[in-house]
Amino acid sequence: MKADLWGQTKGGDTPLICAPLVGRTRERLLAEVAGILAKKPDLFEWRADYFDAIGETAAVLDTARALRAAVGKCPVIFTCRSTAAGGQSIAIDTGKVVDLYEAVASSRLVDFVDFELDNDPGNVRRVRDGARKSEVRLILSYHNLAYTPEVGYMVDRFLEAERQGADVAMVQVMPRERIDVLALLYAIAKADAKTRIPLYGVSLGPLGSVTRMIGGLFGSCLSYAVGENASAPGQVPIGELVSVFDVLRRSRGGEML
Amino acid sequence: MKADLWGQTKGGDTPLICAPLVGRTRERLLAEVAGILAKKPDLFEWRADYFDAIGETAAVLDTARALRAAVGKCPVIFTCRSTAAGGQSIAIDTGKVVDLYEAVASSRLVDFVDFELDNDPGNVRRVRDGARKSEVRLILSYHNLAYTPEVGYMVDRFLEAERQGADVAMVQVMPRERIDVLALLYAIAKADAKTRIPLYGVSLGPLGSVTRMIGGLFGSCLSYAVGENASAPGQVPIGELVSVFDVLRRSRGGEML
Repeated sequence: MKADLWGQTKGGDTPLICAPLVGRTRERLLAEVAGILAKKPDLFEWRADYFDAIGETAAVLDTARALRAAVGKCPVIFTCRSTAAGGQSIAIDTGKVVDLYEAVASSRLVDFVDFELDNDPGNVRRVRDGARKSEVRLILSYHNLAYTPEVGYMVDRFLEAERQGADVAMVQVMPRERIDVLALLYAIAKADAKTRIPLYGVSLGPLGSVTRMIGGLFGSCLSYAVGENASAPGQVPIGELVSVFDVLRRSRGGEML
Repeated sequence: MKADLWGQTKGGDTPLICAPLVGRTRERLLAEVAGILAKKPDLFEWRADYFDAIGETAAVLDTARALRAAVGKCPVIFTCRSTAAGGQSIAIDTGKVVDLYEAVASSRLVDFVDFELDNDPGNVRRVRDGARKSEVRLILSYHNLAYTPEVGYMVDRFLEAERQGADVAMVQVMPRERIDVLALLYAIAKADAKTRIPLYGVSLGPLGSVTRMIGGLFGSCLSYAVGENASAPGQVPIGELVSVFDVLRRSRGGEML
């Protein structure tokens, strides 16, 4: 039995659904949350790279506090995605981003932080140690927005995330052809047999969006879906994802003829 | 551009939906059709191995005529599945089955006949020639109810069906573990690049039923779904399949962020 993602057990192979928040201001973020809560996502991700006041630690913490109050016990992932990994261009450098991760973790206002595995190892260590000290869970993520690497490389990215101390390992890659989508799913299944931590893998864009629906069957524990706004290409609305999960769950209910 | 399955163009990668009919009598078959028509399948498959009077050619032709009248222009596949391939035990031997295929094709009351590729080559030729003479399309199908062979073998089954003169090539295999499901999808995609005819591939059982939903993305042109009764393990109800196809079609609508 793997460590679970968030103490929640769902039917079989159904991933948890995470709704990204991309508001540029405190007010817009709170409005976004208010609009999404009724859709009952399992988690929220605050994509802080969209936040205008990303450079002001006090403003970030104040907003994290407001988000916490708004979402109640629903787990929150704090992510400041780099431009190389598909994030927004921001006013602060990586050193300041690491400082911010430390401050946010230490506030304990979020439950997870998501940091990119390919960052400078010293920075990865700082983010990891900051998270551990405050009992915030660490997601280490690999992103390739250009193409889908070989299966072996993707498997190794999952394993490397675990070696670096991640609580969840994430691989997001862009498919160029349809067999790339199968390669990503295969990599999740292979890595799933070799790791103790939960994994999340996705093939991006319209071609890959099927992986958001069926990734759970191959070992992906999470699926990001549109509450009000998408944060990555290929995300589908929460309601549609839930309806597909329902069909999949029934189809796998063991009703053999 | 591949030969199309039945002159129908559907959005992108959406397979045609075929509803199997498994009634044991003329009356039950007609009741089955009546119950399914409102669900608007794209094709019907008459699984004649379920038909009690399979040994009486006149009864088979009479029922085929009644089915044709009941379904109107909706294409019908005639299949007498062998027990080795998951069919019912029947009272006639393979020679008589081939005679029956010839009689049914020559009546032109059906649009397709589905015969197993692994039959004696002489029988495959007779069924093929009978179908051609009457302009009935030929599906040649490979079935493995025990396991999922290597990708290369499955690709070769698709290619062999085309070499034997099939108008549609079919591969149905049983998965033992989840990566078998990916292997089947990969085989369809590989074969799709090497063949001119439409392909249908499916991974059976609860583990494989996801392939009935997403096979179209990898080159499968058909999906068998439950109208009133399933004919193979893992089939899902037509309405559920349609809802998943709708989500997939929207997710692939090309809306990049």
